[in-house]
Amino acid sequence: MSSSDIFIGETIGTAVLILLGGGVVAGVVLKRSKAFGAGWLAITFGWGFAVLTGAYISAPLSGAHLNPAVTLGLAIEGGTEWSDVPIYVLGQMTGAIIGATLVWVAYMGHFQAHLTDREIVGGPGAQDTAKAAAQAKTDAGPVLGVFSTGPEIRNTVQNLATEIIATTVLVLAILTQGLNGDGHGLGVIGVLITSLVVVGIGLSLGGPTGYAINPARDLGPRIAHALLPLPNKGGSDWGYAWIPVVGPLIGGAIAGGIYEIAFA
Amino acid sequence: MSSSDIFIGETIGTAVLILLGGGVVAGVVLKRSKAFGAGWLAITFGWGFAVLTGAYISAPLSGAHLNPAVTLGLAIEGGTEWSDVPIYVLGQMTGAIIGATLVWVAYMGHFQAHLTDREIVGGPGAQDTAKAAAQAKTDAGPVLGVFSTGPEIRNTVQNLATEIIATTVLVLAILTQGLNGDGHGLGVIGVLITSLVVVGIGLSLGGPTGYAINPARDLGPRIAHALLPLPNKGGSDWGYAWIPVVGPLIGGAIAGGIYEIAFA
Amino acid sequence: MSSSDIFIGETIGTAVLILLGGGVVAGVVLKRSKAFGAGWLAITFGWGFAVLTGAYISAPLSGAHLNPAVTLGLAIEGGTEWSDVPIYVLGQMTGAIIGATLVWVAYMGHFQAHLTDREIVGGPGAQDTAKAAAQAKTDAGPVLGVFSTGPEIRNTVQNLATEIIATTVLVLAILTQGLNGDGHGLGVIGVLITSLVVVGIGLSLGGPTGYAINPARDLGPRIAHALLPLPNKGGSDWGYAWIPVVGPLIGGAIAGGIYEIAFA
Amino acid sequence: MSSSDIFIGETIGTAVLILLGGGVVAGVVLKRSKAFGAGWLAITFGWGFAVLTGAYISAPLSGAHLNPAVTLGLAIEGGTEWSDVPIYVLGQMTGAIIGATLVWVAYMGHFQAHLTDREIVGGPGAQDTAKAAAQAKTDAGPVLGVFSTGPEIRNTVQNLATEIIATTVLVLAILTQGLNGDGHGLGVIGVLITSLVVVGIGLSLGGPTGYAINPARDLGPRIAHALLPLPNKGGSDWGYAWIPVVGPLIGGAIAGGIYEIAFA
Repeated sequence: MSSSDIFIGETIGTAVLILLGGGVVAGVVLKRSKAFGAGWLAITFGWGFAVLTGAYISAPLSGAHLNPAVTLGLAIEGGTEWSDVPIYVLGQMTGAIIGATLVWVAYMGHFQAHLTDREIVGGPGAQDTAKAAAQAKTDAGPVLGVFSTGPEIRNTVQNLATEIIATTVLVLAILTQGLNGDGHGLGVIGVLITSLVVVGIGLSLGGPTGYAINPARDLGPRIAHALLPLPNKGGSDWGYAWIPVVGPLIGGAIAGGIYEIAFA
Repeated sequence: MSSSDIFIGETIGTAVLILLGGGVVAGVVLKRSKAFGAGWLAITFGWGFAVLTGAYISAPLSGAHLNPAVTLGLAIEGGTEWSDVPIYVLGQMTGAIIGATLVWVAYMGHFQAHLTDREIVGGPGAQDTAKAAAQAKTDAGPVLGVFSTGPEIRNTVQNLATEIIATTVLVLAILTQGLNGDGHGLGVIGVLITSLVVVGIGLSLGGPTGYAINPARDLGPRIAHALLPLPNKGGSDWGYAWIPVVGPLIGGAIAGGIYEIAFA
Repeated sequence: MSSSDIFIGETIGTAVLILLGGGVVAGVVLKRSKAFGAGWLAITFGWGFAVLTGAYISAPLSGAHLNPAVTLGLAIEGGTEWSDVPIYVLGQMTGAIIGATLVWVAYMGHFQAHLTDREIVGGPGAQDTAKAAAQAKTDAGPVLGVFSTGPEIRNTVQNLATEIIATTVLVLAILTQGLNGDGHGLGVIGVLITSLVVVGIGLSLGGPTGYAINPARDLGPRIAHALLPLPNKGGSDWGYAWIPVVGPLIGGAIAGGIYEIAFA
Repeated sequence: MSSSDIFIGETIGTAVLILLGGGVVAGVVLKRSKAFGAGWLAITFGWGFAVLTGAYISAPLSGAHLNPAVTLGLAIEGGTEWSDVPIYVLGQMTGAIIGATLVWVAYMGHFQAHLTDREIVGGPGAQDTAKAAAQAKTDAGPVLGVFSTGPEIRNTVQNLATEIIATTVLVLAILTQGLNGDGHGLGVIGVLITSLVVVGIGLSLGGPTGYAINPARDLGPRIAHALLPLPNKGGSDWGYAWIPVVGPLIGGAIAGGIYEIAFA
């Protein structure tokens, strides 16, 4: 694969991944969306099929990593050249920011309505600014959740451990693809199965942190959240931002190591 | 493929697509259906498996486009002859109207009950016609939703943008099928994956407009809605009807262009 | 295929189909089940994966019809000998009765609890027999639903039409399998896709009648319901029983005819 | 396959199975999880994709039994050497305990919060210890459910029967894999279909006992539950522990017998 195919493939694929992945969260959490309140099963299937779509489209160009932790695992295992790693990651970050921006375009009016519609409490004419401010804070959380992950219980050790464990499972499943399937590394059945594995990881290990399991999936949209002109959006929770970057990278490296020891 | 195979395949396939696609909305929104209130996840899986069924049946005859935006994208990419485009679209529109009519047959008593059963408010004997009229209006919305899409927030720019973005993803996934899979353009695994991509697009990008992503899917049933003898059905929202036609066509063309530039 | 392979395959496969299909309804509707209230999406996926399991197990022996309407469609199309039809149907009916009996074994205590536990209304010691009788009737409906289908709106023409339409779609999808896939009629991917088609038909066309789409699936368990010693079970609704037999057979024949005209 | 490949494969695969399977229950039942209340459909898909992930990863090493009942059925059928059975089971038990421990790590803070957070009833400052104790008992049930199964209606005969029936279906589907598919025993499509069969068994037969259908899946995590330092965890229900061991083994043997008689 040429460098330009890698960059273009990862950019397009990760943009589609984040567009659909962020999109399902937007659909479920933003008021006045048809998918409002569709629940956790909808979010996990949505993210899984986001992987399916992004990977299916980009596989012919770049092999569909779409995730620096996957690229790291494959580099350790030997399936990817170390010299290609920066190109992969650059494409992934570019795509993630583009994808998050497209979510904002697709749901523009819903972000606006979600963040600015206020049911004024206290009777007609009353200016209950304290309650309005509290409501603004309540609404800002789900909006950040459209872009990036955050823990339900903020505990650095557990949050990091959960991301490491979940990403180890993901990358191990991707690395063993070459041993299954029909002979060509990332066949179309492999893409399908990986996407269902992602649904499974979301259902099973998404409860504590929202399963970033992908540094680009979390950091790219967080940058977009910081830059986009969303009203009353609140902060981008930069204090947490390192965990969904470092945790998945450790997980990808562990998976590469397990693969080398047990499967190679 | 002969012109008659194309026409017959697209007619049968699109009829099945709309029968099952409209059917799941009818099942979920019409009162006294066993599926009543089954939610957005049911609707998105229902539409996805409608694509699966319609495409699986029609693939041997016509290649299973079932969507003018797909036909347009394939014509731009070169996989479909421009001279066949009108035959495809004619079959798709014919099938869509037939499919919507079959939904009406399958749910006939439920349309009747949904649109005419009134819980009279105001005590026994009271003729609360204002409330009954309001209820009729409330009931008519879901019935039109069985046939055609409509936005939750009416905003031409956003509505068009959402349909363009969603259709670009769909058609790009279909165009790259030839590069994946087992060598024959629209293999059976490709049909399966496309159907799950449609579930994903529905979950992720269906919130704002109900994801027409297919001019025939929206316009054909809207014509059927206008023609069928449904009581208290209200208008067919013709003011919105151009968006789910134009948006998907633009999306299909953009996907064809991206494919030509990045993948061909 | 030998006659004994056909009979054994259809018996085992249909028993598994009805065990899992009836089982998911039991799980969702019977009180004190872990799946209680899991909803329509659970029921439709449960029936789809019941088809998957039953067909996957029996495909090597009998080709996995599991449905007289499918056998009829295949006989019209030419894929099945007319002389084998009685053996198929006999196996299907035998399997259906066995499967329904196994549902009763697996959920025995739950049937008992569902049909006999009464919250006595009217204070401690009061014998509110009228309300208890009403409750018994309310509880009996779901129990019959574990075995056989019934319409939400009882209308012979619509009920028959819905079953015909839904079965036509099912059998058409099965008949076109030979034209898709990898060369062998009922390949393993075909089984998977058929099962998802069944999920789709349930979601989309199950609302009015509960989608028998299979005479053996409805009649066999109805016989079991009549014979099994369930307390307070009420009648087996024999007045409706002909519709889920005749409707699917007409649908299977129509599908066979469409196939002969348009695909052969 | 070498003994060490079998042991390592089964250990890794079963650890992943139990990590994701226990994880989805943790996600759905533990307070303050994002998946809290996601319901039975989420649990059954979560367990199914846990099978998919664990089997997909371990298939190249050990053939992915992950279940003593499957190993028993395959030994009866002849696909597995009897001399390898102890190695399989040892790996499965080791993996199950590791997997359950990883669930505890991934959800550590949530177990803590679930088992210790008390809404003190009776006003500020009141020490309503009786109610707090009742609450502790109420909370302990779901926590044991993260590890092991338990019946909704405690009835030895029915509970055993349900586990036998459900496991017979599972193992029969796995044994017939060699007759389907593309020629190699446990192909990648077979893994996918088996995982959906497990979703189906969960939906259809999980209601009464929670579908252990696997002695290692139940006994391993029960040992972990007994050993792990969970506060207020209550007992590990050892009185029930033999049923999800004996029932599945009988089911696996029955499936092996049916296969030998009807399919071989």
